[in-house]
Amino acid sequence: MTMTTSTTTTAATPVAPSRGALRPLGLDQVQITGGFWGERQAVNAAVTLAHIEGWMEREGWIGNFDAAATGTLGAGQAGREFSDSEVYKLLEAMAWEIGRTHDGDLDARFTALVARIAAAQEPDGYLNTQFGRPGQRPRYSDLEMGHELYCYGHLFQATVARARTAPGAGDGLLELARRAADHVTDTFGPDGIASVCGHPEIEVALAELGRETGERRYLDQAALFVDRRGHGVLRDIEWGRAYFQDDLPVRETTVLGGHAVRANYLAAGAVDVAVETGDDELLRALVVQWENTVARRTYVTGGQGSHHTDEAFGEDWVLPPDRAYSETCAGVGSVMFAWRLLLAQGLPRYADLVERTLYNVVATSPSHAGDAFFYTNTLHQRQPGTAAPTDVASPRASSSLRAPWFAVSCCPPNVARTLASLAAYVATTDDDGLQVHQYAPARIRTALPDGRRVEVDIETGYPHDGLVRVRVATSQERPWTLTLRVPAWAKGATLVVPDDADPRPADPGTVSVTRRFSAGDVIDLHLPLAPRVLHPDPRIDALRGCVAVERGPQVLCLESVDLDGAGLGTDVGEVRIDLGAGLREVAGRTRAAFVALPALEAAWPYGDANDAGKPATGGLDSPRTAEVPLTAYHDWANRGPSTMRVWIPMV
Amino acid sequence: MTMTTSTTTTAATPVAPSRGALRPLGLDQVQITGGFWGERQAVNAAVTLAHIEGWMEREGWIGNFDAAATGTLGAGQAGREFSDSEVYKLLEAMAWEIGRTHDGDLDARFTALVARIAAAQEPDGYLNTQFGRPGQRPRYSDLEMGHELYCYGHLFQATVARARTAPGAGDGLLELARRAADHVTDTFGPDGIASVCGHPEIEVALAELGRETGERRYLDQAALFVDRRGHGVLRDIEWGRAYFQDDLPVRETTVLGGHAVRANYLAAGAVDVAVETGDDELLRALVVQWENTVARRTYVTGGQGSHHTDEAFGEDWVLPPDRAYSETCAGVGSVMFAWRLLLAQGLPRYADLVERTLYNVVATSPSHAGDAFFYTNTLHQRQPGTAAPTDVASPRASSSLRAPWFAVSCCPPNVARTLASLAAYVATTDDDGLQVHQYAPARIRTALPDGRRVEVDIETGYPHDGLVRVRVATSQERPWTLTLRVPAWAKGATLVVPDDADPRPADPGTVSVTRRFSAGDVIDLHLPLAPRVLHPDPRIDALRGCVAVERGPQVLCLESVDLDGAGLGTDVGEVRIDLGAGLREVAGRTRAAFVALPALEAAWPYGDANDAGKPATGGLDSPRTAEVPLTAYHDWANRGPSTMRVWIPMV
Repeated sequence: MTMTTSTTTTAATPVAPSRGALRPLGLDQVQITGGFWGERQAVNAAVTLAHIEGWMEREGWIGNFDAAATGTLGAGQAGREFSDSEVYKLLEAMAWEIGRTHDGDLDARFTALVARIAAAQEPDGYLNTQFGRPGQRPRYSDLEMGHELYCYGHLFQATVARARTAPGAGDGLLELARRAADHVTDTFGPDGIASVCGHPEIEVALAELGRETGERRYLDQAALFVDRRGHGVLRDIEWGRAYFQDDLPVRETTVLGGHAVRANYLAAGAVDVAVETGDDELLRALVVQWENTVARRTYVTGGQGSHHTDEAFGEDWVLPPDRAYSETCAGVGSVMFAWRLLLAQGLPRYADLVERTLYNVVATSPSHAGDAFFYTNTLHQRQPGTAAPTDVASPRASSSLRAPWFAVSCCPPNVARTLASLAAYVATTDDDGLQVHQYAPARIRTALPDGRRVEVDIETGYPHDGLVRVRVATSQERPWTLTLRVPAWAKGATLVVPDDADPRPADPGTVSVTRRFSAGDVIDLHLPLAPRVLHPDPRIDALRGCVAVERGPQVLCLESVDLDGAGLGTDVGEVRIDLGAGLREVAGRTRAAFVALPALEAAWPYGDANDAGKPATGGLDSPRTAEVPLTAYHDWANRGPSTMRVWIPMV
Repeated sequence: MTMTTSTTTTAATPVAPSRGALRPLGLDQVQITGGFWGERQAVNAAVTLAHIEGWMEREGWIGNFDAAATGTLGAGQAGREFSDSEVYKLLEAMAWEIGRTHDGDLDARFTALVARIAAAQEPDGYLNTQFGRPGQRPRYSDLEMGHELYCYGHLFQATVARARTAPGAGDGLLELARRAADHVTDTFGPDGIASVCGHPEIEVALAELGRETGERRYLDQAALFVDRRGHGVLRDIEWGRAYFQDDLPVRETTVLGGHAVRANYLAAGAVDVAVETGDDELLRALVVQWENTVARRTYVTGGQGSHHTDEAFGEDWVLPPDRAYSETCAGVGSVMFAWRLLLAQGLPRYADLVERTLYNVVATSPSHAGDAFFYTNTLHQRQPGTAAPTDVASPRASSSLRAPWFAVSCCPPNVARTLASLAAYVATTDDDGLQVHQYAPARIRTALPDGRRVEVDIETGYPHDGLVRVRVATSQERPWTLTLRVPAWAKGATLVVPDDADPRPADPGTVSVTRRFSAGDVIDLHLPLAPRVLHPDPRIDALRGCVAVERGPQVLCLESVDLDGAGLGTDVGEVRIDLGAGLREVAGRTRAAFVALPALEAAWPYGDANDAGKPATGGLDSPRTAEVPLTAYHDWANRGPSTMRVWIPMV
């Protein structure tokens, strides 16, 4: 790995490593100007942030801080152990949004919220509304499930977002966070409590706060937390210490396991530690974990976690579509982990997973209106759900319709902060030029360390259209290199460069052009968007005999509202896909041929090949067949209760 | 349905309906004299009962009663909300065992245990060590999860067992139980608390205590509990009221759902209520529930429950083998439900499920030595487990090796009471003769209502051998009818009757012989035990492309210790069964041909048909093939840590 050393001021980006293959660009350098993600950012700004703030006021999670400040908080605090963290995630989302749009009203709300939080901080820097007061449990008495350090983590990430988008804002957040971070390093340092938090997050956050403030001891504390974990420092629980990754040291772990959000947050923080300390052994271990997790424990959507019980990864190849947990937050965590590896190593495979996860997990969670969310993201809905209540927090994470709020509501603010900061994941630079990783209409204005201006605009209808046009905005005397990612699925992509007679082939990976760019130069990347049939690895038992369909970066699914429209009933479990007929694109939608199963009746569902339980499609006299449009998975359940499946059995 | 009215004294049987198609025989009329079940009864008597008693003493669950009696019990009581019930289940198991073997030492232990329990009963009949004292929660303050009525239920079942196996024993248990039952009817009667217990069990127990004592109000209370449930009388919880069947009234329910043990216990009690009150509408609803549950929500083992999260049934067709929960107690509950329907309706399908569940769930739980147990019964073990600790209660129900004890240890005493009372499930009578439902070496001595003696001995090596010989012990001038069940899988069975030149075909269902039997008459039922390949209903997504193998009533499985012995590695996930080679029986074991998967490597497990993720057996140049013996599922994990699967993908 070649490491470049950052020489510029920290950009407005969530992650700013001091070295690595690629250098991130911030919201000050990249703006998404429309399209798929631009629309979602607009809804996030217009609806979601206020929706979240409203629910947190209503549920009393923000009010906890007021009560703490006035000394009236006791055993009756609202919310769960981690409710403070949700407020901090909202704060982070607001900070990115202010950095993106410079919304003055939002800035005022942000500042007011910081003031309420600051009033609750104790003189020694401790800040948590759930512990330490009369009637509450003592501080740090439940490191396994108490989430106190986890909450600080989200506080620090919000602080970094604010410091990088509004330096010198004067709202006091940075000072508040430093007091809290000093308290953490004092309390959990080498001579302090020799343990970790049951929910990793403090690691990734302390590392970034260290980067932002230059405080080495924050980074050292993050490294200490990473090293301590895995030695059984936490109490054993019913699901075992693997739940919070305390079963095996990070550097001895070969695949992510246990609670999927915890695993990804920890891995992301460990990458930060490895990069900042030059710990290549640790980094190699994390790369292996990522590779094995992606190869054996990740859904086609990029979703991770196949156990409802403990919100955890299953063993290798345990990827049941109908019991997929695939928590939205695990998707966010996976983006965090992959993005850090991309910055460290520069390999396009990391950006491939980021793209897959953004389109098929992060974009799936919020409703089109932006006021309801999936917590889990099943890949097979067997029963049409009932509409989630709009006026009370939903206790159940498995509803098939998006709910406005959950008793555990980590996912909505996690989506909000990701969408608001999304421009930071679009492109990077190195010493030679610009790398574009994610395709959206965008404006990019930055400079290389030696001063060469790199200024381009991206025009594209992606992911609906496969043309990505990079238009150079500023002429530059000296050459620089434009590098574009070609997704692994984009076989047959081509690049058209000015003055070239013919398109160049652009194989999956990256394609680069080095030249003296002039303003107005146009580079066109053509990504083939013909729908593709996917077969699963034969070791995934739950998918045997099934295929999925993708179009570009979007996983498609069969939704019963479309099935019903084609006269094939309302149950996606009762049809089979007929690949012999191929796939067709009609009016922007991919269509496939489906055959209805014959009516089956059996008193006992296991029998010999002549019993009713046999694979029975062969016995159908006049099979009902129809062409049915597929739906982008992220769009499902926006048309009322439905059944749905991503993996479809073949005839 | 033809109903017969019981005219004899209540037999020593767990269920004694006042009417129904069949009349149960008790331990005083049927003895299992050896064979598969005889061996398990012997281990249960010699090892398991003392093992359970020892652990309950050690864990303080029995000591809770002593502390309650001396007034020293407070917030520090041992065990969970339901620990009293485990002591009662042990009591029930002991009562049946005393009835079976008349073991004087065991009788003395039983009587001593009753005395300790009796000392803890409060003056008004209330009895529970977990509620109502200073430092404890108030009585009936948590009907959802408190299990107080559930505990009474097991107390009443133990009482019935004792009353029917040792009438007039003078240990005070019956009087104790009546005081408790009177307290329950006073407290929860028509004018009392208008609710139910979060864990059904009081219903089935009160109905039986009513049958035993003749107290109509116990039965009325059971009926009231059945009718109350399903109207949202319990508080909603994260998993929804379906968890404790409070989402829909019993008579409107069409399939079992929610917590699988709760669902079966409730259904069993509802059958009792329906039979005793002549409520044919309720009985019809329960028959439909049973039919749909068996057709769509039951594992091939008879196991029920496919969610780890809430120990619950999944939706129709959700039967993942690798995440099967299939709690041992749910198997016991299913036997209870099916047995009551058999007595009510007389149809052999109910006895078929009882047999399947006994061999493949109940017999699977205990180790050969009888001192360790499965709580859950997975059908696919992917990783060899680590040995369960022998000296501490295991917190995890999903260990692949049987554990000596669990923090929640409902299953071991449930198995023990079932094994000790097993003779009661072997045979029944009606006005015309004897019906034999389960095949084991047995001695049956009973009489029909009109005085005809029905006395036979059963000789069989079943399930290892298919010959079931019924030898008549007593001549009888008047004819009577011998009816033998022919399991649904036993196609080609034959019956040989004295004086007949040729065997008679005996189609699945039942076969009957009516004659003037003479002592020494021999009737031979030949059940074909050739191994059978089973295909799953195509709607069970998790089993697509797989088959299972059965031999007689036993489900077989592939265990890695055998795979390894054949040179095919240690991972049952890496082989496919080749049905073209057929199945062979060698030295009493069924053998099948297996092919090892080629080595597969893929960075991403989803791709087109040419990628590494494709179904790849076709690409194998020189496939490794070997014949491997299969193992009876109930025998698995008795040879050290192993991987195992019941459903095996086909080449």
